[in-house]
Amino acid sequence: PGVPRARGCAGSREVVPTCERYAVRRLPFARLADGDVAFFERLMPGRVITGEEEVKPFNVDWLRSVRGCSQLVLKPQTTAEVSQILRYCHERNLAVNPQGGNTGLVGGSVPVFDEIILSTALMNRIISFDKVSGILVCQAGCVLERLSEYLEEQGFIMPLDLGAKGSCHIGGNVATNAGGLRLLRYGSLRGTVLGLEVVLADGSALDCLTSLRKDNTGYDLKQLFIGSEGTLGVITAVSILCPQKPKAVNVAFLGCQSFAKVLETFTTCRAMLGEILSAYEFMDEKCMELVETHLKLSSPVADSPFYVLIETSGSNSTHDEEKLNNFLERAMASGLVTDGTVATDEKKIKATAWVTWISVILIAQVLWSLRERITEALTHEGYVYKYDISLPVEKLYDLVTDMRARLGHSAKNVVGYGHLGDGNLHLNVTAESYSHSLLDAIEPFVYEWTARCSGSISAEHGLGFKKRHFIEYSKPRQAVLLMQQFKAMLDPKGILNPYKTLPSAP
Amino acid sequence: PGVPRARGCAGSREVVPTCERYAVRRLPFARLADGDVAFFERLMPGRVITGEEEVKPFNVDWLRSVRGCSQLVLKPQTTAEVSQILRYCHERNLAVNPQGGNTGLVGGSVPVFDEIILSTALMNRIISFDKVSGILVCQAGCVLERLSEYLEEQGFIMPLDLGAKGSCHIGGNVATNAGGLRLLRYGSLRGTVLGLEVVLADGSALDCLTSLRKDNTGYDLKQLFIGSEGTLGVITAVSILCPQKPKAVNVAFLGCQSFAKVLETFTTCRAMLGEILSAYEFMDEKCMELVETHLKLSSPVADSPFYVLIETSGSNSTHDEEKLNNFLERAMASGLVTDGTVATDEKKIKATAWVTWISVILIAQVLWSLRERITEALTHEGYVYKYDISLPVEKLYDLVTDMRARLGHSAKNVVGYGHLGDGNLHLNVTAESYSHSLLDAIEPFVYEWTARCSGSISAEHGLGFKKRHFIEYSKPRQAVLLMQQFKAMLDPKGILNPYKTLPSAP
Repeated sequence: PGVPRARGCAGSREVVPTCERYAVRRLPFARLADGDVAFFERLMPGRVITGEEEVKPFNVDWLRSVRGCSQLVLKPQTTAEVSQILRYCHERNLAVNPQGGNTGLVGGSVPVFDEIILSTALMNRIISFDKVSGILVCQAGCVLERLSEYLEEQGFIMPLDLGAKGSCHIGGNVATNAGGLRLLRYGSLRGTVLGLEVVLADGSALDCLTSLRKDNTGYDLKQLFIGSEGTLGVITAVSILCPQKPKAVNVAFLGCQSFAKVLETFTTCRAMLGEILSAYEFMDEKCMELVETHLKLSSPVADSPFYVLIETSGSNSTHDEEKLNNFLERAMASGLVTDGTVATDEKKIKATAWVTWISVILIAQVLWSLRERITEALTHEGYVYKYDISLPVEKLYDLVTDMRARLGHSAKNVVGYGHLGDGNLHLNVTAESYSHSLLDAIEPFVYEWTARCSGSISAEHGLGFKKRHFIEYSKPRQAVLLMQQFKAMLDPKGILNPYKTLPSAP
Repeated sequence: PGVPRARGCAGSREVVPTCERYAVRRLPFARLADGDVAFFERLMPGRVITGEEEVKPFNVDWLRSVRGCSQLVLKPQTTAEVSQILRYCHERNLAVNPQGGNTGLVGGSVPVFDEIILSTALMNRIISFDKVSGILVCQAGCVLERLSEYLEEQGFIMPLDLGAKGSCHIGGNVATNAGGLRLLRYGSLRGTVLGLEVVLADGSALDCLTSLRKDNTGYDLKQLFIGSEGTLGVITAVSILCPQKPKAVNVAFLGCQSFAKVLETFTTCRAMLGEILSAYEFMDEKCMELVETHLKLSSPVADSPFYVLIETSGSNSTHDEEKLNNFLERAMASGLVTDGTVATDEKKIKATAWVTWISVILIAQVLWSLRERITEALTHEGYVYKYDISLPVEKLYDLVTDMRARLGHSAKNVVGYGHLGDGNLHLNVTAESYSHSLLDAIEPFVYEWTARCSGSISAEHGLGFKKRHFIEYSKPRQAVLLMQQFKAMLDPKGILNPYKTLPSAP
């Protein structure tokens, strides 16, 4: 939830064009001519958008933080059409911005200048699903939530889940190597994506759409496109391994009095819940305040500086509840958590020692929404400076504390939440509106801090437009040079999603 | 176990040099000169091997199926030394064969002609292990079993396990993207390897040795080296995510009367064991016969055309035994399995309905050795033609039946076993000695059969020297061309493990 409703929620203010706000120079691509539009209209009649108002939502990211000035959106339905579009653009030297659900958080999904927008919105066909192997093959434009619903009917789930599921496309998920809420349990897309079909910059289609769990015949080319943010090719179809739907799901929402206790709770629950632990998320009290204020959600657990959401997924509800029960008793008894609520699939909880401190029994989704809708709540604050950092888990919250001290009253709020189980912090700074001076106070401080701890300046959001010049805080120069060589080899004219992911070539 | 003891077990016959058996033309690399040896002796005194007898074991693969004629083995200890070696060889145009434990099955780990052997045997230092995150960082030459032992003391395990664990190096495992016995549960190395340090063909070191679970800053370069069989760079260090050691492990060894029942048993146990299922292996009765004959192992379960090994790993022994018990009762009651033995960590089994058909209670390792040592048993037969195929699970055994019918008496034995849970069949054909005519009866039949089912002609062994010309049975030409472009970009002189993985450039 969240994302579709959040579009434009920060008010009707106009977004400053990216090329004005940031000092970017347009690269010498060709300009769109009438003949180009006519070509596309012949190729895919009725699926070419040129009206300024109709194109507008494709030019602005959902955070309303960047804005391009494309004049053309194309909505292919087939891989062959994507091929023809790219072959034409390659010949004509026209730049192209591939776009999925446009839910990216680093300005990777909208144009910077007048790039043609290639939307996967109409490539939303499920090609096959095999119930024996659990392998789903579908077009890149399938909405994640739609795929989840489809799979649930067959007794399976998608190996990834994220707040933007109602809008994001699976192709975009793969292009950004999305992490999300289930990575702790089901691993990254680098393991679950079995095959890809990709159209390269010159329009040639690369068919690596196998449906095999294991295939060691040559280099694994698809990996290069996972996480390449549309800069190396346009993903047109995905083959992905889906886990069986767990028979029992439990969610516990707990309050902790310090971050040290959040960490100790994690170590304890990892040991005691073992293979059924499927999520360990945390948020600070500021996050809770924003969710309550802006979205009118109310938390069943209160008055804690930190909150933790633990999810278990397993095949035997009795066993799972027993494990969870044992863990919660231990956590309570040793003072790790001071308050908590548990939701089970069956909407009932057996009487146990810890039942006394359960305030309300809610369905799991209500508890999840407290965590999942933080991003949405933040957009109500005004402008949001977003950071998505990987750090050694012990140091995770120090960055929030340090940033808060550094910014003082110049920021409206500094909040921290994220996927603690993966060592992934979402640090967000809010202000009434964008200001260069606040940005300068945050950056490069946040990147230097992260680099000192050998962390990553982008755990799961990618680099897109906003972070590309900071890549060397997390990657050695030699690696960046090699990436630029790959880019030059696969897209010699640089027409695919220019100004994204990599810093401008030296 | 198995591999180290198996070296040379097929007798003292001389192995025919690869360049004689197969029609290969030596590429125009420089020839080793006295000055070269002198240079290396200055660089790494005492770690340069030149004596014919001492070099011999490095020239022959452990299956004794291919043999190179290298005159020089180098044993660097540090990444800096690997850099210096490659910088020198690159300048001199000398070809290099990187070698780990030399346990590969496709002739990828030994030279074809006189390539210099770069052995990682002395690069066996554990660099760090973090108990909070479970992340291990070590040099490429660490032996897998040694790492497993080290981790077990800390309460963790390696995410991969395979029969060759006593000899294979982790760097070689990563270079071949080894699958093995735990993939079903812990996923492939593409998800568990977090970082790599690699030395490129020109001697430059590429440091992607991060220890982060999530890092989306640019393209994931390390993926290109995973499974590249030493043709794109030499892996010098590995960062890998290790799971916690399961508190309870159970192994069931069962007999099934048909392959259809093997499949139904799999579907049933996947549903009933869920998250605790950690292996589902199968073998046919021919395999059992060979293990009994050549290794004098005895099976507690007999008289079945198929045998299945099921392993569970979990955090609560009572829960796990209850799940296993429920599954076994169902499997027995519905006639899926006809005989069976169960081993638990505690070396005792609770009295249950199925206790009556348990003939012996053994420790898990004894049951595992029946499956793990098949490869070793096969080498006692003479020459082994090995095929490692991914197929849709329903068709997995049809290939064995068809091959058996096709070859008739011209083969000694045709056996099938493998990782059924991953759709991975090991098809092996044995004969007294190598013959071209038997090879021609098997190939390309086996590849055509696989391609018709959209399978992979190498699930986990790689292509190495023996399979490289068959890549197009599993990959489209366009993909192969792109792989060749990557090879040309990263190793323009082609000095790294030549004659391997990719077909000769057109």
